[in-house]
Amino acid sequence: MVVASDPVVALEAARTGDRTALARLLSTIERGGAGARSIGELAFSRAGKAYTVGITGAPGAGKSTLTSAVVAEARSTGERLAVLAIDPSSPFTGGAILGDRVRMGEHALDDGVFIRSMATRGHLGGLALATPEAIRLLDAVGFPWVLVETVGVGQVEVEVAGAADTTVVVVNPGWGDAVQANKAGLMEIADVFVVNKADRDGAAQTSHDLESMLDLTGRSGDDGWRPPVIATVGTTGEGAADLWQAIGRHRAHLEAADQLTVRRGTRLREELALVVQQRLRAKAEALLDDAGRSSLEAEVLAGTLDPWAAADRILGPLAD
Amino acid sequence: MVVASDPVVALEAARTGDRTALARLLSTIERGGAGARSIGELAFSRAGKAYTVGITGAPGAGKSTLTSAVVAEARSTGERLAVLAIDPSSPFTGGAILGDRVRMGEHALDDGVFIRSMATRGHLGGLALATPEAIRLLDAVGFPWVLVETVGVGQVEVEVAGAADTTVVVVNPGWGDAVQANKAGLMEIADVFVVNKADRDGAAQTSHDLESMLDLTGRSGDDGWRPPVIATVGTTGEGAADLWQAIGRHRAHLEAADQLTVRRGTRLREELALVVQQRLRAKAEALLDDAGRSSLEAEVLAGTLDPWAAADRILGPLAD
Repeated sequence: MVVASDPVVALEAARTGDRTALARLLSTIERGGAGARSIGELAFSRAGKAYTVGITGAPGAGKSTLTSAVVAEARSTGERLAVLAIDPSSPFTGGAILGDRVRMGEHALDDGVFIRSMATRGHLGGLALATPEAIRLLDAVGFPWVLVETVGVGQVEVEVAGAADTTVVVVNPGWGDAVQANKAGLMEIADVFVVNKADRDGAAQTSHDLESMLDLTGRSGDDGWRPPVIATVGTTGEGAADLWQAIGRHRAHLEAADQLTVRRGTRLREELALVVQQRLRAKAEALLDDAGRSSLEAEVLAGTLDPWAAADRILGPLAD
Repeated sequence: MVVASDPVVALEAARTGDRTALARLLSTIERGGAGARSIGELAFSRAGKAYTVGITGAPGAGKSTLTSAVVAEARSTGERLAVLAIDPSSPFTGGAILGDRVRMGEHALDDGVFIRSMATRGHLGGLALATPEAIRLLDAVGFPWVLVETVGVGQVEVEVAGAADTTVVVVNPGWGDAVQANKAGLMEIADVFVVNKADRDGAAQTSHDLESMLDLTGRSGDDGWRPPVIATVGTTGEGAADLWQAIGRHRAHLEAADQLTVRRGTRLREELALVVQQRLRAKAEALLDDAGRSSLEAEVLAGTLDPWAAADRILGPLAD
């Protein structure tokens, strides 16, 4: 194991199987800042081969167990995979890592699988900015498949989930679960639906609800792809092969229709706009501090300066 | 009626009861831009007396009917009110205005009530920026109460709903409605809970769920205020008097504990930060266009420039 502070050396070590080097590179990306930039630049220039699959759904839908079953299925066909588990609720990366070991323990000794949790650390835009960078790093070190597991709650989380080549939305049998998925904005981003825990009552009804909603929301296959609805039981692995095949079919569809390049282009454009916004936000914070944040705020609170006039003073030459 | 392009004249006309003048001033604020700025500045210097009440909840919770019942109750005690209905889903202001007439028709001929819908027009941050300006205008022209009705779905909408002196969260009887309110982030912002449509099955259970959740989420009254849970039937007006009294009690609590100034100060600080961000976002758009958006995007798509390096080029001297 090489303890490499040079990102080129560290990336090469990670590429040839040094997992500690890879974990450190991911931690640096997660932290952001200048260190993350040089890794991001390197990874960007070497990425572009991996296919990404987003797996999302409400908390408790059984995403991790299902992901583990999909990984087992993919491994049985010889595919190498990296799994990125986004855990927006946990501020404890340690806890998240422990969680991985428990949930994905069966893959712990498999060299063809790399599993990593990312916590958001609560900073605005952090998750949306760090995730594509982390995916590119896993891509650059040679994983042909990157699975991204996210909780499908909240605008940012749903956006992150939708920023994959194929997005799998997981629901459970039971009244209203399909309706909730629709409300959370998951209906628009799904390329494949999974009714997980399909051994429970109501699974057929939930599949039926999803099919009806696909009809209603206009996602009934006009663009040549109607999201299939797959029944799975994550704990037994039932249906995992069907799901893996559905992902493959969607991939083939995107590639045949030349949609993959279009999709990735849209994502990169969105990422660029987000990066610009994020940089300006940091600049705004700095400007607020430079301008004497508290004295300006005091004037606003005293009613002698309205927020827009205060913003003019803060922004100075940027206000034009 | 005076058709006044001078905002000072228009504001004075609105203050003495000219509703057309007031409606025009609100439209100008909604549109944003330079016209909105001069009105905003004037309103800011004359505002500070009105008490704001946010009323929020899921679509279909019966917020408008309940608001109408609260208005009737407040009018019976002689209070004058303005109602601002935020309609994030409707791009048609015309449609929203028609909606008001239908929903709040009983107050149409009452000089002590002014009702207005605001559509977001889809521009980012528009709702969060225009709402406090509109509230200050209604404050400046002399309404002692401003009720703001919003749909409690989405981060921005929840933030707008929470930016009131007293925030009322409306849920319905039925399985999981309290849980959904919690997930939507409404539990944290509620000062008063309402179980509306309380003549339906399950109302007592929903009240019980809310009380349990208040215990669990630590909002059990440590700061001297535990959000009460009020049962109402908006269509008959049942419980509206209880709700109006609960709002009065919360107001008295805030004033006694000197919390009102603190709350309003926090809001103004947040608004200032948001204005600065919004100005910078506009600047970013301009910079993206100046820098030749499409050619830079092409380089990113071609893989020759990573998004952060592209952002550096776009931001130029602002990148520091």
